[in-house]
Amino acid sequence: MSDVVTAPAQALNEAIQEESPTLHAALSPLGLRAVFPQDIPFQAGQARSKTYNGTIGQITDGHGGALPLPSMAAALGGMAPEDLNRALLYSPVQGIAEVRERWRAWQRRGVGDGLASTLPCVTVGLTHGLSLVADLFAGAPGGRPRVVAVPSPFWGNYRQAFALRTGARLVSAPAYRGGQFNPLALEEALEAADLAPDEPAIAVANFPSNPGGYSPTREERQRIVASLAAVAEERPLVVLCDDAYAGLVYEEDVPSRSMFWDLQGVHPGLVPVKVDGATKELSFFGGRVGFLTFPFAPDSAIAEALESKVKCLVRAGIGSPVAASQTVVLAALRSDDVADQVEAVRRLLAGRYRVLLEALDGVDRELLQPLPFNAGCFALVEIGERPKKCGLLADAVRRHLLEAEDTGLVSIGESFLRIAHCSVDEASLPELVRRLERGVQELCP
Amino acid sequence: MSDVVTAPAQALNEAIQEESPTLHAALSPLGLRAVFPQDIPFQAGQARSKTYNGTIGQITDGHGGALPLPSMAAALGGMAPEDLNRALLYSPVQGIAEVRERWRAWQRRGVGDGLASTLPCVTVGLTHGLSLVADLFAGAPGGRPRVVAVPSPFWGNYRQAFALRTGARLVSAPAYRGGQFNPLALEEALEAADLAPDEPAIAVANFPSNPGGYSPTREERQRIVASLAAVAEERPLVVLCDDAYAGLVYEEDVPSRSMFWDLQGVHPGLVPVKVDGATKELSFFGGRVGFLTFPFAPDSAIAEALESKVKCLVRAGIGSPVAASQTVVLAALRSDDVADQVEAVRRLLAGRYRVLLEALDGVDRELLQPLPFNAGCFALVEIGERPKKCGLLADAVRRHLLEAEDTGLVSIGESFLRIAHCSVDEASLPELVRRLERGVQELCP
Repeated sequence: MSDVVTAPAQALNEAIQEESPTLHAALSPLGLRAVFPQDIPFQAGQARSKTYNGTIGQITDGHGGALPLPSMAAALGGMAPEDLNRALLYSPVQGIAEVRERWRAWQRRGVGDGLASTLPCVTVGLTHGLSLVADLFAGAPGGRPRVVAVPSPFWGNYRQAFALRTGARLVSAPAYRGGQFNPLALEEALEAADLAPDEPAIAVANFPSNPGGYSPTREERQRIVASLAAVAEERPLVVLCDDAYAGLVYEEDVPSRSMFWDLQGVHPGLVPVKVDGATKELSFFGGRVGFLTFPFAPDSAIAEALESKVKCLVRAGIGSPVAASQTVVLAALRSDDVADQVEAVRRLLAGRYRVLLEALDGVDRELLQPLPFNAGCFALVEIGERPKKCGLLADAVRRHLLEAEDTGLVSIGESFLRIAHCSVDEASLPELVRRLERGVQELCP
Repeated sequence: MSDVVTAPAQALNEAIQEESPTLHAALSPLGLRAVFPQDIPFQAGQARSKTYNGTIGQITDGHGGALPLPSMAAALGGMAPEDLNRALLYSPVQGIAEVRERWRAWQRRGVGDGLASTLPCVTVGLTHGLSLVADLFAGAPGGRPRVVAVPSPFWGNYRQAFALRTGARLVSAPAYRGGQFNPLALEEALEAADLAPDEPAIAVANFPSNPGGYSPTREERQRIVASLAAVAEERPLVVLCDDAYAGLVYEEDVPSRSMFWDLQGVHPGLVPVKVDGATKELSFFGGRVGFLTFPFAPDSAIAEALESKVKCLVRAGIGSPVAASQTVVLAALRSDDVADQVEAVRRLLAGRYRVLLEALDGVDRELLQPLPFNAGCFALVEIGERPKKCGLLADAVRRHLLEAEDTGLVSIGESFLRIAHCSVDEASLPELVRRLERGVQELCP
């Protein structure tokens, strides 16, 4: 029966319960059932060094080497033979060991030894990491949808990853109040969510944010941490740190390190989980290399139990992660100057950020209300009071900009527009803002 | 509410109902809910040609070009600049247009115009295609698990993709009877499955098979088709054609084309769905490029409805498919001699197949019973009567071969061992079989 927790799964659940009753209480029915089966990848792992190895269904030269079509090998011609081989063959389900180790070191830049983190599991981009967290902790146990609090406006795909797929209930936590960032949003939303005593919940901490382009200051960060600890006093709380835009901060008082580290040890009822990846951090959008990390020591029993569950779900959904892209990511992570290469991208975006900040500073506040932004790839503007009164909706502005202003923006909800400065030339940003302002003016003169 | 079918989803469902009441009846609750939302990728699609395009959250040079780290661009140095750009940036959720078109042409080699197929959606390898089919058609509607018939012994990951994730019920259809392939297996398993009248079901047609390495002869094929048509007389039937090993056939009387084509139009109650990919067909295991195809004209309303649902689920689970790997696949599909490059791989495997066939022909049938095989990457052997009587299990043989014979094979169920000739040198196969035979002999003298 598919809904039965087998003995091997139960053994993992007990290891999790032992180390973190909070995380155990938060597991979904699917999370409780998941265990990496002892079938082909498991058995192939055991046979790796054997002379006569007929375990794995990939076509090789008979000695473990890839057998690529010449046209495809040529396309990957920039790689050393050993890496080319790795790019063409299956990745381990948990990811290539060197990629995992080097990414862990990358994540822990400036982080003290006192803070724990597992060897990250490789995912197919950030979204796959989110959907794995949804599989593990969301769903509707006993028919009661698990509550997931998300600061709003939020990236629409959270709805698909959590609610549509698993049946969880998304609750909106308004991220801005009176035009200012509200660090208590998640706590307030969970308080209003009508949860039963001790009912587990999930909170999404996405900083720098999408679509807000906001990352909390030092002081706001402390208030967020304290407020989530207060929630954890009431119920098991998994905090999903969606670190897609990690490192892209542009102001002095905004720390660049992930909240994942700040949330460790603040309350036994709170477990942060980190989702990050090469997509934005290494500017490799087409590669689909993400990572899923838990706040436990790499060799602990709970780390092994969680890795078995993640591997089960990765294998069930997509087989194994992308070896070709992992090999490309390795080329970056092995570079002595990878931090400088990444910093060059950050500086370019910082330039666009400042130009956009200045351009938005000049808009008529009756027409458009820019929300505070200081990080990441975006700025968010709200439709102003005057056009709101004439009934103007964000999507009408978007469509008008497409038709009349040769300009594309994203509408979010009824009254927000998102500007992605990451994909616009610095010199074009003032004109883009002028066209946005003019478009709103034209629609509600 | 997450379980509500929204108006846009309902419009898709009606388009599906109009063209194929069978497929509509077979949709799962998640399949009924799925619709590609009009958020960022949708809006970015509409803004693609605009001068001021601030829609999409990928870091570019401001004019649509990628902004790679130099170390990563070097690793992909075998690509033309335009392809490199495409490899680094997001793929459309449905896949890169040229890849889809060229793969469709590849699938339709030798197929007449009278047979329909959609433009395939790109998936993250074959398994992702399977899990999308599971999302669309499996699950447990109204708490009653959808039945999925799978020829056994079967690839263990069907259990994860269908049962563990969605709650469907796998029923085994013994693929061999008295040591011979049984073309009626799926029909027999569904008849025995205690289904309600008109209750939809799924049948898996995996040819060449894993772990069997078998593909039906012309005559067996006709019997399979007739037998599935008989099932469709009783209930809506989705036949999942898992064509992972397409084209790898080694005998004259075994057709190489997919059953997907033979199953079209045989009964209105039967809809075949095709899952295939570059993994085995183009020998690109680490790339994770698969495809999902339906038997409808590319511009039909039902094709568009199904594409919207697939895109919703792809976005929910993994964001978008792998652009980097799709670009590598393009290099092959654009080659004039891609068919020759693929044929060279097939010929190599055909050589190993013949050597393995001969080696297995010589084994003591009391110790090991080879099952018929003629295609794909594998041969399957059953533990013979004598060692069965002494209680020998396949996994004990496997572990003994690892420890005492420097040999790795995969055990399946209680009594089967799978030999993957695709990953063993031709010259080593006789010795591998000798060691297997000796191992069984040693365990049950």
